[in-house]
Amino acid sequence: MTELVSKSDAGMGGADIPEEHAMKRFPVRKIDAGIFRSGEDNVAVEEPLEICLAWPADGRKDQSADNRYRNIAVTMRTPGDDTQLALGFLFTEGIVRSPDQIATVSVSGADSDIDGSNRVTVMLQEAPTIELSKLERNFYVTSSCGVCGKASIEAIHTQAQFPIQSEEWQVAAHMLTALPDQLAAQQRVFAGTGSIHAAAIFGPDGLTGHVYEDVGRHNAVDKLLGAGFAAGELPLRNKGILVSGRASFELVQKARMAGCAILAAVGAPSSLAIDLAWDSDMTLVGFLRDGRFNIYTGPARVVHG
Amino acid sequence: MTELVSKSDAGMGGADIPEEHAMKRFPVRKIDAGIFRSGEDNVAVEEPLEICLAWPADGRKDQSADNRYRNIAVTMRTPGDDTQLALGFLFTEGIVRSPDQIATVSVSGADSDIDGSNRVTVMLQEAPTIELSKLERNFYVTSSCGVCGKASIEAIHTQAQFPIQSEEWQVAAHMLTALPDQLAAQQRVFAGTGSIHAAAIFGPDGLTGHVYEDVGRHNAVDKLLGAGFAAGELPLRNKGILVSGRASFELVQKARMAGCAILAAVGAPSSLAIDLAWDSDMTLVGFLRDGRFNIYTGPARVVHG
Repeated sequence: MTELVSKSDAGMGGADIPEEHAMKRFPVRKIDAGIFRSGEDNVAVEEPLEICLAWPADGRKDQSADNRYRNIAVTMRTPGDDTQLALGFLFTEGIVRSPDQIATVSVSGADSDIDGSNRVTVMLQEAPTIELSKLERNFYVTSSCGVCGKASIEAIHTQAQFPIQSEEWQVAAHMLTALPDQLAAQQRVFAGTGSIHAAAIFGPDGLTGHVYEDVGRHNAVDKLLGAGFAAGELPLRNKGILVSGRASFELVQKARMAGCAILAAVGAPSSLAIDLAWDSDMTLVGFLRDGRFNIYTGPARVVHG
Repeated sequence: MTELVSKSDAGMGGADIPEEHAMKRFPVRKIDAGIFRSGEDNVAVEEPLEICLAWPADGRKDQSADNRYRNIAVTMRTPGDDTQLALGFLFTEGIVRSPDQIATVSVSGADSDIDGSNRVTVMLQEAPTIELSKLERNFYVTSSCGVCGKASIEAIHTQAQFPIQSEEWQVAAHMLTALPDQLAAQQRVFAGTGSIHAAAIFGPDGLTGHVYEDVGRHNAVDKLLGAGFAAGELPLRNKGILVSGRASFELVQKARMAGCAILAAVGAPSSLAIDLAWDSDMTLVGFLRDGRFNIYTGPARVVHG
């Protein structure tokens, strides 16, 4: 696999968001204590990104170009790290499993014109092994038992290729409580706009590598894990994921797909996030702020000190 | 149309979330200033909901039951007000346009067992007029110009059936600054969990009617607008929508579909949210908290006092 992520040094210590694509200035009227005044405001950019999959002909029937190309998804995201976002999405949704499956990744339009065509096409080495028609339905739905939280959790277990690290790795409580300040110090778009999600990796000594930001919290995690996927850094071992917002089912799912044993969220978890983390032997930390946090599952990985 | 919303009095002043379905207690380890102690925590419930569309045979070919039934979407939501959520989703996505199109709405499983089947089936009076195959692709994608913010905005204008109220209706700045406290006072699930989004309607004198809550902010708005749709209260006239979080493109889109002239958000707007509001002659208010707010578009609708 050559130059999977062409625009950066890749990896989870990787690329920066080009700030001119991530923020935009708008005129604004500010009202404070009844006083109206005019000003300007930095706003986080939101733009659609289309994620497409393509693959070469392999001599079978029905191999016209149209039959070797699929629009997989459109996500509303903050421009920047689009290649990582596409790869992270395809990986965490179980559509690609290894960087060896990827031939090339091409981005159209995003560099030249922020309002132009926003498309990442991932060319595979060969036709995908999973049935793409299934992607048209949401995979949370299984025909056997209908749609419910339990079926959603089982679907994740079926898809996940990496086990959660079972040998001990532990983090100290005081390291965890230091993470939000480390994150805030690196959140450049948030500092400018007050309005964007972030995701980063931490090790035993605190945050490591780049902080990925996006208007969508799932996108921030996909950018982070896509960078790790491209750099061959998955599964995550002796590393955790920190997210700036709430821990939904979707975020625990993404961490689970990466084999990550600890997910720490500045916000609250949902019931299904806790259920999936518990069922996966993951450690789920929530409300990590102001020197405090709650451990919802897997408390043995967090030690005093 | 009879008994569209069977389990409540419907309307935007309507149904309550059954709290036992919206919150769940989990054991938790709480760490504060290095002290570990055990406790319990109220957590917002997240569960998948499948939204299905069905319609009667009309004498044409290929009218087997399978051909008159479609899974439209699965959304991760907080149980409660599921009928409103399904109707709001179908309306704001442009799939149904009038309550007259609806024959019945049936909910399976949600009452009897929170972990059971979570499915709302909306039976139409006749076969849908829009081409459902288009729903498999995201409608933000238009073939003519590729995927970009401009195309996304044009797609919304094409779908929206109601104009934005053009005759003046104005709100006073001090009424807007009072809204967050009114919202907080009614957010029962948030008060219990510290972790859930809310949406409500306001008029010239403040909040009116029920506050809808959900782990997904788009779901909270769909519940609100689905209640209004079922009660024949759309388009919104002399009314605005208040949301507890950020104003994304998706939330402005939903307000636009309801013909709503003012969207006020406690959090920040995104760039595309501002672009759509501007292009729709809507008033978009952000960072509405602590006695302050910003007006991003349509400032003429907000007056001193």
